[in-house]
Amino acid sequence: MSKILVFGHQNPDTDAIGAAIAFAYLQNTLREEDVEAVALGTPSEETQYALDHFGLKAPRVISTVKDETTNVMLVDHNEFQQSAADIAEANILAVVDHHRIANFETANPLYYRAEPVGCTSTIILKLYKEEQVAIPEPIAGIMLSAIISDTLLFKSPTCTPADIVAAKELAEICETDYQAYGLEMLKAGTNLSDKPASVLLDLDAKSFPMGEKNIRIGQINTVDLKEVFDRQAELEAAMVVENEKHGYDLFVLIVTNILDSDSELLVVGESKEKVEAAFNISLENNRALLKGVVSRKKQVVPQLTAAFS
Amino acid sequence: MSKILVFGHQNPDTDAIGAAIAFAYLQNTLREEDVEAVALGTPSEETQYALDHFGLKAPRVISTVKDETTNVMLVDHNEFQQSAADIAEANILAVVDHHRIANFETANPLYYRAEPVGCTSTIILKLYKEEQVAIPEPIAGIMLSAIISDTLLFKSPTCTPADIVAAKELAEICETDYQAYGLEMLKAGTNLSDKPASVLLDLDAKSFPMGEKNIRIGQINTVDLKEVFDRQAELEAAMVVENEKHGYDLFVLIVTNILDSDSELLVVGESKEKVEAAFNISLENNRALLKGVVSRKKQVVPQLTAAFS
Repeated sequence: MSKILVFGHQNPDTDAIGAAIAFAYLQNTLREEDVEAVALGTPSEETQYALDHFGLKAPRVISTVKDETTNVMLVDHNEFQQSAADIAEANILAVVDHHRIANFETANPLYYRAEPVGCTSTIILKLYKEEQVAIPEPIAGIMLSAIISDTLLFKSPTCTPADIVAAKELAEICETDYQAYGLEMLKAGTNLSDKPASVLLDLDAKSFPMGEKNIRIGQINTVDLKEVFDRQAELEAAMVVENEKHGYDLFVLIVTNILDSDSELLVVGESKEKVEAAFNISLENNRALLKGVVSRKKQVVPQLTAAFS
Repeated sequence: MSKILVFGHQNPDTDAIGAAIAFAYLQNTLREEDVEAVALGTPSEETQYALDHFGLKAPRVISTVKDETTNVMLVDHNEFQQSAADIAEANILAVVDHHRIANFETANPLYYRAEPVGCTSTIILKLYKEEQVAIPEPIAGIMLSAIISDTLLFKSPTCTPADIVAAKELAEICETDYQAYGLEMLKAGTNLSDKPASVLLDLDAKSFPMGEKNIRIGQINTVDLKEVFDRQAELEAAMVVENEKHGYDLFVLIVTNILDSDSELLVVGESKEKVEAAFNISLENNRALLKGVVSRKKQVVPQLTAAFS
């Protein structure tokens, strides 16, 4: 069999990169074929901080598969629209993921490992143990970083007890104080001041059809809400442009303070009344504080979906 | 959470029924909720023989889910057209399977465990070991039966080393001579004489679009090819009726001798030349012997697909 490429989703986060590195290393110890971790984009500043901290190189960036090989393994995603451009033509040998399954199809039986936990790297730790493969320190470090990133240091409601146990085990292997390191790593991803508003809106944004409306929901992590909202006028202007350009009816920007685990919304478009109803809030100056909200998947999308349908 | 139903595919075989019973038992030991194995059809004679042999009751037959619960777990299938009629509305908590993934989608993250092995019950044995749950003798017996059925007593090319190891381990637990028992069980499924030709054609049949053609491929297991071909005229007449009724261009019936692992084809429709080319054979009286062929999935469908496209 020819070379095997392993990669996470487009616009990769720390789990997409870390899980690819960790799963490729595991597969290389188990298989004769050459297995290479690659990525569908460059690392974010948070991910680059983690890679540098543990002395790892960023995976090579690819966008298509077929010029190199037909054999791939996916981590941290399965939906084809989040994957390589020509994924439908590839032979998918394995998937390790923690998301819902949708827009995914194979011609042949495959290895598929999914669990409803907070991070793909939590599942990959299990696979190392099942195969009794020792985890090198740098790889334990990037897996720990992925869990910290996906769970916001265990504060996200997507975090499960299995993620916390896994993170502590990985922290021992790489001899890392996960609280201190985790906060530094998350802060490294909050360097927003040098980025134009249009980039901030697109750092981590997804589109959702809800009822008759097409809704865009972006999220920014920060350690200082004020620093972000000092640029409110610039952000709102960019949100208007995005709505017009892509046909979004509504843009909801979630600005999350990773230190105290609250988020402030900034809302541009229609209908604001439904956003207010969804969270039982009143928007003032297009803004509202949501205490204890940090997860788009669990604390924002379902509430908006209910209000708009 | 309300009750959880576990089931295999429509037109269930021994793995669809056995894996449901085995996975439901495992889940009942791990969860607080009531987990019930059910089936999307009545057992075949082979499966009923296995259930009787190990003192198990056939699972209750259902066709839809929503009147009872919203929570389900699937074994031995994932494609919605093979599942409960209202599967798209159910909340799928878990899947354990050994097929390709297609026409499958969930709203939420789930537990998904697939491996490219010969039988779902081989994977379920692994899950019992991971959870350190002891397998009761009757459940080991029906899991052993499922592996024997799916692999035709290890003779099918779909059989992997993992299936053989699993079967031997299960045979020890249920204190069964798997060779002698396996042959008796497979023979129990070959009682064809009391069934009309239309029933034989539909015992295990699937449709495949190939190129411009719509092709139906049925399979019958027997210990006596002659007994089946004594009814050739009756079978051909029924195949003509099926082709006309459902718009099949071609009906290929694979009659498999499970004792010597050969199959004889019976072919009605067009184009016979392409069938001859696919297997490098000459049909005589619409028939041809295929030495060593027992698997539709691996030894018939790919060859016909290549010839027709």
